[in-house]
Amino acid sequence: MALIVQKYGGTSVGTIERIQEVTKKLIKYKNEGHDLVVVVSAMSGETNRLMALANEVNDRPHGRELDVLLSTGEQVTIALLCMALEQQGVHATSYTGGQVRILTDNSHNKARIMEIDDNNIRTALAQGRIVVVAGFQGCDEHGNITTLGRGGSDTTAVALAAALKAEECQIYTDVDGVYTTDPRVVPEARRLDQLTYEEMLEMASLGSKVLQTRSVEFASNYNVPLRVLSSFTEGGGTLITAEESQMEQAVISGIAFNRDEAKLTVLGVPDHPGIASQILGPIAKENIEVDMIIQNTGHDATTDFTFTVHRSDFQSALQILSRTAETLGAREVTGDDKITKVSVVGVGMRSHAGIANTMFETLANESINISMISTSEIKISVVVDEKYLELAVRSLHKAFDLEKVGD
Amino acid sequence: MALIVQKYGGTSVGTIERIQEVTKKLIKYKNEGHDLVVVVSAMSGETNRLMALANEVNDRPHGRELDVLLSTGEQVTIALLCMALEQQGVHATSYTGGQVRILTDNSHNKARIMEIDDNNIRTALAQGRIVVVAGFQGCDEHGNITTLGRGGSDTTAVALAAALKAEECQIYTDVDGVYTTDPRVVPEARRLDQLTYEEMLEMASLGSKVLQTRSVEFASNYNVPLRVLSSFTEGGGTLITAEESQMEQAVISGIAFNRDEAKLTVLGVPDHPGIASQILGPIAKENIEVDMIIQNTGHDATTDFTFTVHRSDFQSALQILSRTAETLGAREVTGDDKITKVSVVGVGMRSHAGIANTMFETLANESINISMISTSEIKISVVVDEKYLELAVRSLHKAFDLEKVGD
Repeated sequence: MALIVQKYGGTSVGTIERIQEVTKKLIKYKNEGHDLVVVVSAMSGETNRLMALANEVNDRPHGRELDVLLSTGEQVTIALLCMALEQQGVHATSYTGGQVRILTDNSHNKARIMEIDDNNIRTALAQGRIVVVAGFQGCDEHGNITTLGRGGSDTTAVALAAALKAEECQIYTDVDGVYTTDPRVVPEARRLDQLTYEEMLEMASLGSKVLQTRSVEFASNYNVPLRVLSSFTEGGGTLITAEESQMEQAVISGIAFNRDEAKLTVLGVPDHPGIASQILGPIAKENIEVDMIIQNTGHDATTDFTFTVHRSDFQSALQILSRTAETLGAREVTGDDKITKVSVVGVGMRSHAGIANTMFETLANESINISMISTSEIKISVVVDEKYLELAVRSLHKAFDLEKVGD
Repeated sequence: MALIVQKYGGTSVGTIERIQEVTKKLIKYKNEGHDLVVVVSAMSGETNRLMALANEVNDRPHGRELDVLLSTGEQVTIALLCMALEQQGVHATSYTGGQVRILTDNSHNKARIMEIDDNNIRTALAQGRIVVVAGFQGCDEHGNITTLGRGGSDTTAVALAAALKAEECQIYTDVDGVYTTDPRVVPEARRLDQLTYEEMLEMASLGSKVLQTRSVEFASNYNVPLRVLSSFTEGGGTLITAEESQMEQAVISGIAFNRDEAKLTVLGVPDHPGIASQILGPIAKENIEVDMIIQNTGHDATTDFTFTVHRSDFQSALQILSRTAETLGAREVTGDDKITKVSVVGVGMRSHAGIANTMFETLANESINISMISTSEIKISVVVDEKYLELAVRSLHKAFDLEKVGD
């Protein structure tokens, strides 16, 4: 007997048959006595279809009207899911974001949630109804429809769970949880039962696409227990909370990696204050996102400066950097777009020395050269040649005993 | 320089190309200095697609959720039309029914408009914007989405024109106006320049499908000048107002007909008060709509009672009537589903004697037997064998000189 918020993504509601499968799941939970608030995305393909229509009439569709258009995707799903539930004799009521109402700022296409009025939802729940809410959308104070941007349905679910003080926010997706690493690379990869928000954030930002970073941040801020489960198979999934409940935590939770990196280095830059912003400023101005940044201690009053970008931004970043290097009187600019980033992540790292050493030793044993290193409190990332990616991930997975149940 | 409400139906906005054609029309009006409020339907086929989805999950979809679903159709169109206008550098703002807001009662799928708040629209118009409103929809006092039923976009347009005191409400459709009769039956049929609400109502209810009866009633109640035009060709269309402005009105405006009628007769019913409701009550209870009703003066304390229904309801009506006849002790029940109704319509009829006579004489000259007659102030309808339909319409069209410009 608890209030649970569940979110089903586009694939989970992609066809009428799948909507009917979701219906069964919901009725099972309902029959166990739970109060259910369900957040759904647009049926898979629908958002792309609408986007294509928009692009046919306007090469740069206006934000407000784009939100009016795209928000219909989820609106279709909420109605169909309620109808499917009613067909089974279970009462359900749908709400668009504006009807809830989920008040956002007026940044169309990437609005931020300001406030949630839980009145309508609480009333419907009190009547024993399942409440179905359109994800990804809200309205501003003037009643204009807004959307939270792609993947925003996760955020809607977490925000509702926070507002309603739900016991858990369950994100149903096409994988059955968060894994120690990508099972396609390491067949021994193991589903984690638990994980902290911080670990999940590091995993997500490192290419583990199970959850949107933003929704994990949101869950962390409001301390909403988040569970990732599969729509298609049974199982407890992965629970993400502030702290793992087990006495003995695993030192390392997983190995994340990011294939599509490229690195750029400017050599022999005159070493004076403000040099970093002079180098990265022009890059940021072109909306190129920079990932890792490393500056080595200089010698002869010059320094070497390296950063990584998404591989698709490599060429334009290289051009910008070459112009900057000339202005700054740097010696040389080099680049490599055949690199990959591999990271070990785990809150246990905080209290365990030697993690970095194990990592470097493991890679050295496989003769994998490390070209960059960057660390955070719960993560160590290295950049290696992309041809070593699989070997690096597999050997690290084994070195940290991740195939064994330990958490 | 006037405020004009224009409505474009599903065919007129059925493809991206057609939406772009509508855009051109709107910009032309805008450049002439008019203020424009545009009401659009769902792209043709969209409502049927959504309805099919609903029927897949529920054999009797719940009214509230059906409205949530179907209202997305128009919402897509308003966004696309605004984007197409903005692409041409013309500022436009879209509103769903709820955003306007168009307040309705809570009869889902067939809601009635209670009140229109013109605040948002007036503000946008004052900023020189074209306002695009989703037809067919509104919201109830609790913010639930409602729809006005199929064809309700016409009603939305007329209601907005009334609320905004627009100079004219223009209904763009796939025909270029209202004709003296169906041009497929009578090639000489002529487009009428003007018509009264009453005449249009009679024409519409008699099978002339150009306008929804309900929207004409609405226009009549609020005295909104209504103009029917083609989206695809140029021309002034047909203007529908309270009174035709010409000094000399045409006696007859048009010949309407309805192919799909069937008649039922119960013979030798004991003639006592309340007999009509005893016969028609059970029919109405099964939601069968009755059109013409005729009761002849009885003889021998019995009477004969005849009525017509839509042809698709013939068999069930016959069964019900047979049971009723038995209960009432009537002599016999007969029926005929091969009949058709032909009507002459015109406000001029009020002041001109002899119209009925001309009609009956014309049909007699063609040896067409009349099996039922029913009259209203501005209409005379006869029921004839369906095989005579074309002959009857053509000979009446000629008899009343409708091919000549006279109105």
